[in-house]
Amino acid sequence: MFKKICIIGTGAIGGYYGARLAAAGNEVHFLFHSDYEHVKTHGLKVESVRGDIELKKVNAYKSAAEMPKCDLVIVGLKAVKNDILKTILPLVTADDGQVLTLQNGLGADDEIAKIVGADRVLGGLCFICSNKVGPGFIKHLDYGKITLGEYATDFGAKGITPRLKALSDLLTEAGIENEVLGDLLLGRWRKLMWNIPYNGMSVVLNATTAEMVADKTLRPLFRSLMAEVQKGAAAFGREIPDAFAEAMIEMTDKMTPYMTSMMLDYRAGREMEVEAICGEPLRLAASRGVHLPYLDMLYRELTHLNLSRKSL
Amino acid sequence: MFKKICIIGTGAIGGYYGARLAAAGNEVHFLFHSDYEHVKTHGLKVESVRGDIELKKVNAYKSAAEMPKCDLVIVGLKAVKNDILKTILPLVTADDGQVLTLQNGLGADDEIAKIVGADRVLGGLCFICSNKVGPGFIKHLDYGKITLGEYATDFGAKGITPRLKALSDLLTEAGIENEVLGDLLLGRWRKLMWNIPYNGMSVVLNATTAEMVADKTLRPLFRSLMAEVQKGAAAFGREIPDAFAEAMIEMTDKMTPYMTSMMLDYRAGREMEVEAICGEPLRLAASRGVHLPYLDMLYRELTHLNLSRKSL
Repeated sequence: MFKKICIIGTGAIGGYYGARLAAAGNEVHFLFHSDYEHVKTHGLKVESVRGDIELKKVNAYKSAAEMPKCDLVIVGLKAVKNDILKTILPLVTADDGQVLTLQNGLGADDEIAKIVGADRVLGGLCFICSNKVGPGFIKHLDYGKITLGEYATDFGAKGITPRLKALSDLLTEAGIENEVLGDLLLGRWRKLMWNIPYNGMSVVLNATTAEMVADKTLRPLFRSLMAEVQKGAAAFGREIPDAFAEAMIEMTDKMTPYMTSMMLDYRAGREMEVEAICGEPLRLAASRGVHLPYLDMLYRELTHLNLSRKSL
Repeated sequence: MFKKICIIGTGAIGGYYGARLAAAGNEVHFLFHSDYEHVKTHGLKVESVRGDIELKKVNAYKSAAEMPKCDLVIVGLKAVKNDILKTILPLVTADDGQVLTLQNGLGADDEIAKIVGADRVLGGLCFICSNKVGPGFIKHLDYGKITLGEYATDFGAKGITPRLKALSDLLTEAGIENEVLGDLLLGRWRKLMWNIPYNGMSVVLNATTAEMVADKTLRPLFRSLMAEVQKGAAAFGREIPDAFAEAMIEMTDKMTPYMTSMMLDYRAGREMEVEAICGEPLRLAASRGVHLPYLDMLYRELTHLNLSRKSL
């Protein structure tokens, strides 16, 4: 079913999963930006806690127009670059091909559905700690599981379809831990339960997770932000129980000090995924008449910091 | 009525007003901390847009126990140091003396009332731009008006009393612009309409007023915070009209770039007046069943930054 696979955005996420799929014997085509020349000569390297990979000969491209049409298009770009998908996806997606987006937050599935049609979109949530540390060189530090689901129009849930099962099998055979969800949107809101409070506040307060959980003043704020995520999800008929919030707080209390992805972006002067993680959830909730003041404030703070980050 | 005056906290505020009162011929006694030795030898100097002052011989003290009992005690400390008033005020306040607190935010009047009795507390709101730039050396850059009111128990309003008029006359004679209010609490909440959004957010975003007003994303956030100040005031029967909020936003849009007092404190590693400006208004509103989410978030952010400021 997924004979030809391509990776759009060969970075920390796309590079890692693409390399695993290629190492397992799949035909994988990789789109590169600045790393193209390096990879053509030296190949793609992954140093991973689950076993290193070195791909000496890589199907590397610097333009989507040169790529073959693929049965599975995996989008590993940062959500802030999704504008270019309008041009790329029609070039690389086979007529009956599927697009799997591995992006954070809300909004990407809908954008992609508008380009390739709603019945061809799959979503994946990555729980992984990996970084691109050099050209064509990815370090995978921990975790790696992907949670998969089918995109559904009108905020519905499509259940577990045969192609979702097929995708899950493909990943499993390549040694990629995964789980299938009958309700992608619920999965996305659940992931926001962590990303909104901890990812977002770490930038505003310039603090690691460990520094934040050590300050008991912040705990009610995290809980208030989570309560708003629960309200946002509820506006779309998804229930996230209080116990889930409490468990997330406890889990973070015990985490080793961690610099969140948004903070890494902020410190490196890269644009943060503020719209996908805060803006879109805020607007979606508002579209159902639900006002979320804590998230509104966080969104405006992060938007300001996104604009002013270059002066750091 | 106010024959002997003393200044508790001879810094940017207490030093400026105290020096003006002394220069006008009043008997003024100043309590110093680290500047005592310098002032004993070199006097107190004020460089001011309203005319410089040099007091060669100053009634300077380093301990409240050595000071005479005064008819008017002016408190110019930062609100974060109010703990020491329990010891100081009984030592320096004459039996029928009054205490005037020139502090920001809410809570100080009540604290002082508990020490000297509610009928002896006067409040002043300073609209002034002044800094202590060296030992015994104050620079007064702009403005200078004090708005005066009588403290009233149970959040009431006492109107304009004879002693308030007398205090106003004393200040006027010393060249200090002032205005008397019949309702001190209303004046305090009105001042918070600016201090909460602009002073508070400038620290969180590490931005001057000019940088903040240039970002249109922040305008609705300032308005939301002001709406909460209006709600807090309304919980105590004080109406602040929307037009006041709009006027404050417009005024700030046109201000010359300004580093707020809280940001100056933050950058200098000094404790910020978070409790007086955010914590106390938040708690007072909550005591009347009014939850203010934007202010709650700002309060927790600033509390965290207050704790972590030493690491800068």
